[in-house]
Amino acid sequence: MPTGHVFIATSLDGYIARPSGAIDWLVEGWPEVGHDYGFAEFMETVDGMVMGRGTFDKVKTFDTWLYKKPVVVMSRTLRNEDIPSELGGKVRLSDAEPAQLMAELDREGWKRVYVDGGKIIQSFLRDGLIRDFVLTRIPVLLGEGIPLFGAHAKDIRLSHLKTTSYESGFVQSLYAVKEE
Amino acid sequence: MPTGHVFIATSLDGYIARPSGAIDWLVEGWPEVGHDYGFAEFMETVDGMVMGRGTFDKVKTFDTWLYKKPVVVMSRTLRNEDIPSELGGKVRLSDAEPAQLMAELDREGWKRVYVDGGKIIQSFLRDGLIRDFVLTRIPVLLGEGIPLFGAHAKDIRLSHLKTTSYESGFVQSLYAVKEE
Repeated sequence: MPTGHVFIATSLDGYIARPSGAIDWLVEGWPEVGHDYGFAEFMETVDGMVMGRGTFDKVKTFDTWLYKKPVVVMSRTLRNEDIPSELGGKVRLSDAEPAQLMAELDREGWKRVYVDGGKIIQSFLRDGLIRDFVLTRIPVLLGEGIPLFGAHAKDIRLSHLKTTSYESGFVQSLYAVKEE
Repeated sequence: MPTGHVFIATSLDGYIARPSGAIDWLVEGWPEVGHDYGFAEFMETVDGMVMGRGTFDKVKTFDTWLYKKPVVVMSRTLRNEDIPSELGGKVRLSDAEPAQLMAELDREGWKRVYVDGGKIIQSFLRDGLIRDFVLTRIPVLLGEGIPLFGAHAKDIRLSHLKTTSYESGFVQSLYAVKEE
């Protein structure tokens, strides 16, 4: 089975986006710093990416498609004709459950899967499919928004592996999920 | 006017306690490490402490009273006879609004006020009365609980000043609230 890996930024109060999905508060600090906080290096380590419909709807509005690796969009409602033609061969749909999808990706030879988007990350975490995550904290309190973390039946214990602080005020930590 | 300062720990998903108020997940990592993550040093810098009723109800159940400095409990329902007699002279009640209380403490010569408890911290933050906070992240996801942060009308921007990682996996960051 491949392992799931998260690379995500949140406000200090834990939101990945405003209620509308806006990430202006995140991207505004980005260009002036002139680097990517390790994102390209992280992308080198994964075989591809799994995201939810919310994240897909967001990233497909960007001027350029961000990902060189294959992307699986998990959705029960999207159909193949909803995928813009320029993304043919780059993006495919899946209506499988997380563990079922990971088993499929395993058969295709994937070892490490980038898992993205609040709801998808939450469901993969609940199902024990996340190995570790890189969490970058942006120094702002939004007060409301789409949360990264959600409910689960029992505590999820983590090992803190590394924290790096950036001039921009971003603080990035790597955590591994402890095996039960 | 005195300045408000926060020193608090949360789970990685932002909770200061379980829904019941329990902080077992926090204190269990504490003794084996054998230090206080800078708490005593922080307490030396403040003139006293303001807390809400929820925090007071919690800390008064501890075997020993934790604070050498004066404590103000903000409550509109507690009465003086609700304060245990052994805390006479250490704890007093206030039903004032945050800014009004800060003005009172100013007249008493307080310069730096330790502000504690989820709801109280949120109301002081909303009213612009917090200067900085020390936030210690415990490496566990609780999934539910009493959140540190709450809603506010506009973004609160912060400056990241320092982050320290501990062997225990606790990650402690100091943030200052940016003046608007």
